[in-house]
Amino acid sequence: MAPQLDNFYKTVDSLSEPFIERLRKAVEIPSISAEDDRREDVVKMGMFLKSQLESLGAHVEARELGKQPGKEYLELPPAIIGRYPAKKDESKRTILVYGHYDVQPANLSDGWATEPFKLTVDDKGRMYGRGSTDDKGPVLGWLNVMEAHQKAGIEFPVNLLMCFEGMEEYGSEGLDDFIIAECKPGKFFEDADAVCISDNYWLGTEKPCLTYGLRGCSYYSIEISGPGQDLHSGVFGGTAQEPMTDLVRVMGSLVDTNGTIQIEGIKDLVAPLTKEEESLYKGIAFTMDNLYESLGSQTGIYPDKERTLMGRWRYPSLSLHGVEGAFSAPGAKTVIPAKVIGKFSIRTVPNMEPDDVDKLVYAHCDKAFKALGSKNTMKTTLQHAGKWWVASPKHWNFTAAAKAVESVWKVQPDLTREGGSIPVTLTFEQATGKNVLLLPMGSSTDAAHSINEKLDRRNYIEGIKLLGAYLHYVAEEPMQG
Amino acid sequence: MAPQLDNFYKTVDSLSEPFIERLRKAVEIPSISAEDDRREDVVKMGMFLKSQLESLGAHVEARELGKQPGKEYLELPPAIIGRYPAKKDESKRTILVYGHYDVQPANLSDGWATEPFKLTVDDKGRMYGRGSTDDKGPVLGWLNVMEAHQKAGIEFPVNLLMCFEGMEEYGSEGLDDFIIAECKPGKFFEDADAVCISDNYWLGTEKPCLTYGLRGCSYYSIEISGPGQDLHSGVFGGTAQEPMTDLVRVMGSLVDTNGTIQIEGIKDLVAPLTKEEESLYKGIAFTMDNLYESLGSQTGIYPDKERTLMGRWRYPSLSLHGVEGAFSAPGAKTVIPAKVIGKFSIRTVPNMEPDDVDKLVYAHCDKAFKALGSKNTMKTTLQHAGKWWVASPKHWNFTAAAKAVESVWKVQPDLTREGGSIPVTLTFEQATGKNVLLLPMGSSTDAAHSINEKLDRRNYIEGIKLLGAYLHYVAEEPMQG
Repeated sequence: MAPQLDNFYKTVDSLSEPFIERLRKAVEIPSISAEDDRREDVVKMGMFLKSQLESLGAHVEARELGKQPGKEYLELPPAIIGRYPAKKDESKRTILVYGHYDVQPANLSDGWATEPFKLTVDDKGRMYGRGSTDDKGPVLGWLNVMEAHQKAGIEFPVNLLMCFEGMEEYGSEGLDDFIIAECKPGKFFEDADAVCISDNYWLGTEKPCLTYGLRGCSYYSIEISGPGQDLHSGVFGGTAQEPMTDLVRVMGSLVDTNGTIQIEGIKDLVAPLTKEEESLYKGIAFTMDNLYESLGSQTGIYPDKERTLMGRWRYPSLSLHGVEGAFSAPGAKTVIPAKVIGKFSIRTVPNMEPDDVDKLVYAHCDKAFKALGSKNTMKTTLQHAGKWWVASPKHWNFTAAAKAVESVWKVQPDLTREGGSIPVTLTFEQATGKNVLLLPMGSSTDAAHSINEKLDRRNYIEGIKLLGAYLHYVAEEPMQG
Repeated sequence: MAPQLDNFYKTVDSLSEPFIERLRKAVEIPSISAEDDRREDVVKMGMFLKSQLESLGAHVEARELGKQPGKEYLELPPAIIGRYPAKKDESKRTILVYGHYDVQPANLSDGWATEPFKLTVDDKGRMYGRGSTDDKGPVLGWLNVMEAHQKAGIEFPVNLLMCFEGMEEYGSEGLDDFIIAECKPGKFFEDADAVCISDNYWLGTEKPCLTYGLRGCSYYSIEISGPGQDLHSGVFGGTAQEPMTDLVRVMGSLVDTNGTIQIEGIKDLVAPLTKEEESLYKGIAFTMDNLYESLGSQTGIYPDKERTLMGRWRYPSLSLHGVEGAFSAPGAKTVIPAKVIGKFSIRTVPNMEPDDVDKLVYAHCDKAFKALGSKNTMKTTLQHAGKWWVASPKHWNFTAAAKAVESVWKVQPDLTREGGSIPVTLTFEQATGKNVLLLPMGSSTDAAHSINEKLDRRNYIEGIKLLGAYLHYVAEEPMQG
């Protein structure tokens, strides 16, 4: 029997202004995790969340995560974990939701049209402010769902477990171990039946989506060194082998203009494209103009939507990020850098095992460097690796979410993957052993991480309905998936 | 008749302590031309020089050079020009000498073993201090020559014209126009018969040299742009053509590990090596160990001294300096830079005309970029060009200097060229139409521009003798050269 949600939806509508007010208060706290002297504000934001949850009757704990690695003078902000209703109802399913309460840095002088830490709503309902869409809007969405149930007098459909962190924009320091520990028997998250994360975006601006896959990322450095110190190119140019000359040649051997990775063996690690998967891309609401608009140019690799989506989601890519140690300022400096470090990363997809990728990368770089016949020294290193993640979109967690989307937005959601990574996704999947759903609230134009970040009023309010509807559907969905 | 210089030499020896004291006072003024808030000290150093010259009886003028281009809030330090003796003796030749009284930046925290602006003499007679060798020692050398003549009661052999500038370490701003103007009829430098510049170094540590050639330098940027703004490699990797991918490939096409320039036509611009020139390199006091010591590694291109010296002096070289706009910090950032600017320069030699080099560079880059089939845009630009300079070492100006070296150091000087450029050399040659001699005082281990810059006491004192002896020999040399 489909849940009756009209009363809930109406109550959300009637509470729109207080819900926007709640977001306004949250945006006003500049909880920037990357800046040391904002650490107090990050903690303040965590405490704001805790007190709001408590006033809604949830059981809440602020869990210390210890000192920040590499900055031992700083305490990590706490993980705010909660349970709602405060006492578990054994007859109901338990859904674990995740979000983060820290934000990216922002300064008016970066080019913001409005004060970044003041929620500013324009006449089109665009609510500008740092953290509005990433990720304060979605996090408060869960709180608003609770409040709307209380105000409407509707029984809460599930046991909700919450995990809200304050370091997501700075590598989720300390969180992995915490999640793994709290998913163990007898611990806070042990009884989760499924996981839902609202921390990504629609593919476009009009059609909601459910996300079932993320690419991984393996990040490498190639260090080439020769002379004992930087040299003057007038004095030594033409007499010494220059590390930078070798580096651009090795970097140039990795990938071509059309993004084809030149590393032998990489292609063989990629899961073959099945007819069934291939057919999925046609229906996705995405156009080449969407790509060109977000690129700000027409410099795409493929002329068609299907191959472009596959290039983003299901094939690996290799990007050259830059060079450390060479001259990088404006102007002209006639230096021969003594040691240069090229940075590149590979976005990985099923079935690429990170260790296998490393081996192929090392072998390729060694071979490319050897071919130069250089007397310089080269060392290739993995800086960090995060694995790709793909869930089954046929799982009941996804079917419930799809029904919720249809109920709120009157449309079937696109099933999407993301080119980027949200490492905590894989952690939750592995620690709980349960299905993880990515259920975005904001749209592709929200500019998370950029200037003028916003969340559309419509996405916020309908998004609250969606989160609530999801909990009702997931409570009733047969568990066969 | 060879000049009788014993009395002069003895007087210089007897004045060693006051001469070192004069250098000490000069080193104590931190006349750093690159740092705005040291401009006062640069001017103070110019005034120190002016008053010292005046107390020696010279006619001196401090000539304003106007505002600093690009920093209009700063006055350029004056050119200190002088004539000694104050009244011209029409029966004597007129020699124009150049030096600079500004210095490179220096901080104890850069790794100096002693205070950089305190002359510190160790037990081996090494006199450490910023500017000791570059170029306060040589500049004061001329003053010391005057004083020694006065104290010894020896008639000054020539009319000495002096041009001492305070912006050499920051591009000699404003000087070119000044020199050109003052070399015109009726102006200060009009009657120069030859020019002598003491602002370079011996090739090694034991054998003096005269320098008759410098390479030029043409500095280029390759700018490649595509997207409207930096992109996230997770979201766009594999769907957009990346400027950095194109850039490393174009940069990689310019030169190979052994320094061979790959630009078509460059080789044809280089003056062919004659048997006569080839034979010169054998006798030069230089070893491969000298190279390895200064490189701090064994990563030279050639195994032999002759080809190494030719690589430094008489063949062009191409160095890749770095990339602007890409990720250049330590750590890992997954950015796709939207616009990257590769920097490289070519050291030029006879008979490479800068305009011809530009044309070949542009054609090569265009061709290399076109071969990539990229939708990005590329623009190659010349940032600045300075021409090579080669003088005739058979000119009487050089024969006089060679005799002076033999008189002071009891050895025939090596005739050297330099891989780097001293642009003012060419300006003096063109503005006066006369021969220019580079007559170094310091040695190859003096570390000009580095930490622990020094001038050996021996090089300073014998160098003063050398400058004085040069004036005597040049006064008498037959002018047939």
